[in-house]
Amino acid sequence: MTSVTDLDLSADTVSLLEQLVNIESVSLNEQPIADAVEAALRPLAHLDVTRHGNTVVARTALGHGERVVVAGHLDTVPINDNLPAVLDQSNGRDVLRGLGTCDMKGGVAVMLKLAATVPSPNRDVTFLFYECEEIEEKRNGLRRLSETDADLMRADFAILMEPSDAVIEAGCQGNLRVDVTTRGERAHTARSWMGVNAIHRAGEILDRLNAYEARKPVIDGLEYHEGLNAVSITGGVAGNVLPDACTIQVNHRFAPDRSEAEATAYVQEVFDGFEVTVVDSAPGALPGLDRPAAKEFVAAVGGEVNPKFGWTDVARFSALGMPAVNFGPGDPMLAHKQEEFVPIEQLRSCEATLRTWLGADA
Amino acid sequence: MTSVTDLDLSADTVSLLEQLVNIESVSLNEQPIADAVEAALRPLAHLDVTRHGNTVVARTALGHGERVVVAGHLDTVPINDNLPAVLDQSNGRDVLRGLGTCDMKGGVAVMLKLAATVPSPNRDVTFLFYECEEIEEKRNGLRRLSETDADLMRADFAILMEPSDAVIEAGCQGNLRVDVTTRGERAHTARSWMGVNAIHRAGEILDRLNAYEARKPVIDGLEYHEGLNAVSITGGVAGNVLPDACTIQVNHRFAPDRSEAEATAYVQEVFDGFEVTVVDSAPGALPGLDRPAAKEFVAAVGGEVNPKFGWTDVARFSALGMPAVNFGPGDPMLAHKQEEFVPIEQLRSCEATLRTWLGADA
Repeated sequence: MTSVTDLDLSADTVSLLEQLVNIESVSLNEQPIADAVEAALRPLAHLDVTRHGNTVVARTALGHGERVVVAGHLDTVPINDNLPAVLDQSNGRDVLRGLGTCDMKGGVAVMLKLAATVPSPNRDVTFLFYECEEIEEKRNGLRRLSETDADLMRADFAILMEPSDAVIEAGCQGNLRVDVTTRGERAHTARSWMGVNAIHRAGEILDRLNAYEARKPVIDGLEYHEGLNAVSITGGVAGNVLPDACTIQVNHRFAPDRSEAEATAYVQEVFDGFEVTVVDSAPGALPGLDRPAAKEFVAAVGGEVNPKFGWTDVARFSALGMPAVNFGPGDPMLAHKQEEFVPIEQLRSCEATLRTWLGADA
Repeated sequence: MTSVTDLDLSADTVSLLEQLVNIESVSLNEQPIADAVEAALRPLAHLDVTRHGNTVVARTALGHGERVVVAGHLDTVPINDNLPAVLDQSNGRDVLRGLGTCDMKGGVAVMLKLAATVPSPNRDVTFLFYECEEIEEKRNGLRRLSETDADLMRADFAILMEPSDAVIEAGCQGNLRVDVTTRGERAHTARSWMGVNAIHRAGEILDRLNAYEARKPVIDGLEYHEGLNAVSITGGVAGNVLPDACTIQVNHRFAPDRSEAEATAYVQEVFDGFEVTVVDSAPGALPGLDRPAAKEFVAAVGGEVNPKFGWTDVARFSALGMPAVNFGPGDPMLAHKQEEFVPIEQLRSCEATLRTWLGADA
């Protein structure tokens, strides 16, 4: 018999978050938390709840002309002696500390609280609680849902509640990894003039990387910031042999005004004359802040909007033609750190902002 | 009961070589061949034979004022579908082909033949048949002998019968390996300006390697040729992390007019500003062609004398204060190749040269 943890959706959001954090849900072990989320939401009459693996979808169906997605992943990186959650202080602020508080059960707690307490939103809402965001792409719950039930993901606008310090981060940069390889000719190092040293030839590649100047295009008023970085280098046969190959893996982060194909062409141009092989690639997402639903959300949240430099699952919504933003409690720089925490004040401000935007009393 | 192979020392040198090649003796399996060598030499009244592990020492003790060492290793690199030996042709020359024919049972066959058939040399001779030259330094038979019985190695001059195309190769270059390391600071590649890329910093190291100009000092009339080469490069944390360290292993081959300390100081100067750690080091050996015993040998062999660019066991004799040269049948470029062979003509010319030099009829 499997017992399902009862989540108390009437509790304060901080207490609800504490309950969520204490249900361990390292990637591939999301069943207990997905069971708890499903069990808590299924009794609510205003929601249609469906289950897809360990991804839970809860939708209102009020017949509004507009629908928004609010999404968050249920999994965490591995435990690092940082459970259970503890109330703590950081720089004079009250915080909840523990695995997943920042990335991203803080956002999930806000989603659950809103799902339970905003029965009549002014726009239809699809809450997506998904699995396997922290591990290999093919297991990602949103990816799998987009393959089997893309209709469940469709909306006019999507909010991904990844930690963004409770301000809107719009769009995301694309991510391209290529191997750049030099070739040489082996020889005994005692007679090195008989061969060609492939590692020495890689000097030219590093020179080009050092000469790189990052493009910083402004899109919808947001300044993105590209990057071109070696992330690994390998070469060598033996201690007395001139190496005949050297490979540098280069990671290009590109602003969302470029497609994957354009980014690939750019990298091939930078490394013209060398072998360039694409290792993996993910498209960026345009901020889409010119779309009405996005505009209205930005107005509702107020304050600054930042570009998202990293790649996130907002790109999946973008690929479906939907504008999408990151907006959630927690400092993104704390994600995956042992000492991660979420400030209580950000939990409350994110919840209040979304509650107001959905037409309920703050 | 272990049966010892009977070597027929009265046979022609080519036939003797064939017998030696067909006693498989990959490093650490030298016992059968050492047993055969010992058993063949022990009955000869003009030789004192001693055994040290799988190293066999055979010495004349005629009371001459001069003593020479003639040395060769009994082991080979691993079998590569190249046994047993076969008579063959290469570029119109008769050759014996098979594992160890070139490196270096050709030289060993000549040594055995001379040991058996020159009972009254004009100078005392120490024949050293040693184990484990092809594997890690600490097992090397000459090294072990130098630690336990260095007196057995002492002489006025040493000839190492490593393949040298039957011409004298004098001295040897030293060998130094260092790790040169750059440091940086990790950051997420999506915000690379927050960190410092250690692989990019290695560009300066490769630039210095590319700017290197080899020193070619002339010593005793021989032009050496130094080298400075990256032999491996490693760096990288993960595909989305700015690497905080990059290490290039550099192999410096230095002419024997420099000590290990001088070579190390030179490399530290080249890579000034970077962390430099010595990984291993072996001294060169001066050709010593000004010594009487060496001069006389060069005159006896006639023809050209070449510098030895690689490191060989001649350096061990040099460290004991003895001049030493490489002189043996076979092309050194064929060593460790599957198709290795030794030209019959070089076997015969090396044998004849040494026989004459030892005062016997050619």
